[in-house]
Amino acid sequence: MNDPLGVLEARFRRLHAIEGALAVLTWDQAVWMPPGGGAARGQQIATLRRLAHDILTAPELEELLEAAAAIVEDPLGRANLREMRRLRVLAMAVDPALVEAAAEATTRAELVWREARERSDFAMLRPHLEQVVALERERARQLGAALGLAPYDALLGTYQPGLADADLTRLFAPLARHLPDLVDTVLARQKAPLRPQGPFPKAAQRALAERLMRRLGFDFAHGRLDESTHPFCGGTPTDIRITTRYDETDAMTGLMAVLHETGHALYEAGLPRDRLDQPVGAARGMAVHESQSLLIEMQLCRSRPFLGFLAGELERAFGGDPAFDPDNLVRLYNRVERGFIRVDADELTYPLHVILRWRLERALIEAELEPAELPEAWNAGMRELLGVMPPDDRRGVLQDIHWPVGLFGYFPCYTVGALLAAQLFRALRSALPELPESIAAGRFGELLAWLRQRVHGRGSQPEFAELVVEATGAPLSCAAFFAHLAERYGVSVETAEA
Amino acid sequence: MNDPLGVLEARFRRLHAIEGALAVLTWDQAVWMPPGGGAARGQQIATLRRLAHDILTAPELEELLEAAAAIVEDPLGRANLREMRRLRVLAMAVDPALVEAAAEATTRAELVWREARERSDFAMLRPHLEQVVALERERARQLGAALGLAPYDALLGTYQPGLADADLTRLFAPLARHLPDLVDTVLARQKAPLRPQGPFPKAAQRALAERLMRRLGFDFAHGRLDESTHPFCGGTPTDIRITTRYDETDAMTGLMAVLHETGHALYEAGLPRDRLDQPVGAARGMAVHESQSLLIEMQLCRSRPFLGFLAGELERAFGGDPAFDPDNLVRLYNRVERGFIRVDADELTYPLHVILRWRLERALIEAELEPAELPEAWNAGMRELLGVMPPDDRRGVLQDIHWPVGLFGYFPCYTVGALLAAQLFRALRSALPELPESIAAGRFGELLAWLRQRVHGRGSQPEFAELVVEATGAPLSCAAFFAHLAERYGVSVETAEA
Repeated sequence: MNDPLGVLEARFRRLHAIEGALAVLTWDQAVWMPPGGGAARGQQIATLRRLAHDILTAPELEELLEAAAAIVEDPLGRANLREMRRLRVLAMAVDPALVEAAAEATTRAELVWREARERSDFAMLRPHLEQVVALERERARQLGAALGLAPYDALLGTYQPGLADADLTRLFAPLARHLPDLVDTVLARQKAPLRPQGPFPKAAQRALAERLMRRLGFDFAHGRLDESTHPFCGGTPTDIRITTRYDETDAMTGLMAVLHETGHALYEAGLPRDRLDQPVGAARGMAVHESQSLLIEMQLCRSRPFLGFLAGELERAFGGDPAFDPDNLVRLYNRVERGFIRVDADELTYPLHVILRWRLERALIEAELEPAELPEAWNAGMRELLGVMPPDDRRGVLQDIHWPVGLFGYFPCYTVGALLAAQLFRALRSALPELPESIAAGRFGELLAWLRQRVHGRGSQPEFAELVVEATGAPLSCAAFFAHLAERYGVSVETAEA
Repeated sequence: MNDPLGVLEARFRRLHAIEGALAVLTWDQAVWMPPGGGAARGQQIATLRRLAHDILTAPELEELLEAAAAIVEDPLGRANLREMRRLRVLAMAVDPALVEAAAEATTRAELVWREARERSDFAMLRPHLEQVVALERERARQLGAALGLAPYDALLGTYQPGLADADLTRLFAPLARHLPDLVDTVLARQKAPLRPQGPFPKAAQRALAERLMRRLGFDFAHGRLDESTHPFCGGTPTDIRITTRYDETDAMTGLMAVLHETGHALYEAGLPRDRLDQPVGAARGMAVHESQSLLIEMQLCRSRPFLGFLAGELERAFGGDPAFDPDNLVRLYNRVERGFIRVDADELTYPLHVILRWRLERALIEAELEPAELPEAWNAGMRELLGVMPPDDRRGVLQDIHWPVGLFGYFPCYTVGALLAAQLFRALRSALPELPESIAAGRFGELLAWLRQRVHGRGSQPEFAELVVEATGAPLSCAAFFAHLAERYGVSVETAEA
């Protein structure tokens, strides 16, 4: 083997190209594909995933990784080898027959889930979910055995490497303890906002969304904005595909989705350009990814300085409306509500929705809870954490796609991302004392430059915990999040334990 | 090897999925991709092509093909093995280093060609074209050696298996002999048509195009219509992507492009559903493909019965206009002109443009002509065949993308397709005596059913010559084409030699 590193890099470059192709195929599937194209698309996606898997499980990769480890000394190169190894271990850990069985079971369960949710019929989903949970328990066990981790930790690590259940226990305890009281306080105090009067034509909403994306630093030479049923950010770092949906009676839901996805997009766009096709050039994990979308959406775009700037933009786009008054926009876009639905939740109640799911999914994976017990456990958790009782399973345990499709260990990333977003934004404000004035003037260049330097441009070179400390000066905690809530909602807590 | 056929079919199913993914990637590139996505897309496409090539060149494929040949007896299965073998031989025939060198040379030459055409500067393209021609000569030689064919025949066969230069010599001689005189006669007789007065809003053009596509049998559950710089038909048989471009001052150019591409689409949609993922389920070649687009566009949609039907559709879409009178539409859409540009040519002059290119590219591949001599040879040929002299190379030898990107042997497919379209339409009219009345009433179901049975549904089971004889009752000749011209333009020739 003359050049093991060169051979490895070429193989991972090919893996990156296959993953880029998959990103286009899945984007097209959500945005343009006619319904009759589904079967062929499914085979295309399965085939490319299999080819990607083959690259990672090729027997000779082991020898290549060992040979390269003996010669590579620079930190970036070593981090790249570490990430290659991580992908290899994940791909090798699970019996291929189990992967195939899980793919089939989740495909069926997803179909059934769509109908079961529609009908609010948990019994219909139950046998399929039992099958998925049984397979995911085994997958978690095999992953854990390969990684030397507890099963649920192994699942967490597939989405956010370096994140463990012990971190969640530490981070989520103060949230579960204090947020219910904070919600009470805010609910007692907050005033009803004026609602802007529509209609808001789609073309004007789209033009405003693109204008704000540009302002935030999104480069349309390297990306697009389109429409799909569920907003997402897909594509590849040099060709980013954001989607949203527009409601002509509501100027802001589609726009806030765009701003959220723009946070994801800016992360992808800021990854290290010269290492994009290598594992070390990829984003650091889903919790970090979510921190970037929530930093833009929650920390920045729902802040008073930004909403002051946005007021002018809204008026320019849709004409004058008393609801566009900045004080009213602050009330409107920071409104707290005890709802049943996670995706509609505000930033105070969202973590409670996540904590419920975290407790349940961990218990499912550890076989301390059976799928049959889920509806009762769900409703009990909702009463405990949010003080509300879902009127039916459609607005309860059936609302999310995650478990039917086998995503266990993903939910915590949303709230870990929210905590990290707050901690990053706090660090960013310390570093840039004039930030509020810049934001109010619609200037975001310094903010983006800071994120590029501290987060985006690092790719996967640092481990998760290192990234947090290097970017913010401290390990991840709830302190900045509580401080943010205190500032935005005027509600403070004893955060000694956070 | 327990089940060599099963293993083979699984491998070709995977090849089909990769090719389907490539079709989506190239469609997206032409329709939606932002400019900055080009580099990553290039790598995605190159990687998937390489993976497809790897499937065809895997050493064990040889043994699998032999083992399967010993057990498969049904005609469809044997045809599938024959097509697998054909793809295998083509993939194995050419030195991979040559394939790579050709890919690089044509990528560079295409870029230079765009600028050279813009500037009408052949000297700028010349060194790049020389490199491409040198590589294509060698590729043709290697292909020919593997296939037992002359080099140019080998190239022809990559686009239309079963088509040989001897066929072209036989088919094109009567065209070169008679078409110039027929053009003279038509030019002396034809009357200037009225031009419809615009503007024709894009939305209305698009709605009309979709309406006519539906009428012709295009199923929007399995396809889409979008826009791109150059109209094309891409995608896969169950998810067909047609594109066109709209000019708001011209109601018909975009529509005729859609109708042409709909012919391609109907072919793909009619391929045998249960064999779509196997080589035998693919279209029979590019000349047959072109016969389907030209049958719809030229034979059907520019016919008097169709234009009578279209007159009502145009009026409904755009309001009344004296130019929508059926007689005028016939004059407008069957107008003959001695032009410089192939893609703008009518059905009488188009074959002359093709014959020029066929003579020149054959001479280039056989090293009887050098790229440096092309401009002079081109202009001499234009004078001889079309009686016009291009004012510059932009409107002459630089007009087509084919040679810079290494497509030698493709041009003849256009005219072989035109001849086959005429012969098929003639057979179709004999079989369906009430066809003109159906067409005039906008009913195309019987026509499509006939094409499905005789052409589309056959896939690649028959060889080219068999398909022609089985569908039309005779080998391919110019007779039906000349008869068509006699009927449509009132010009007849001695067709004894056709």
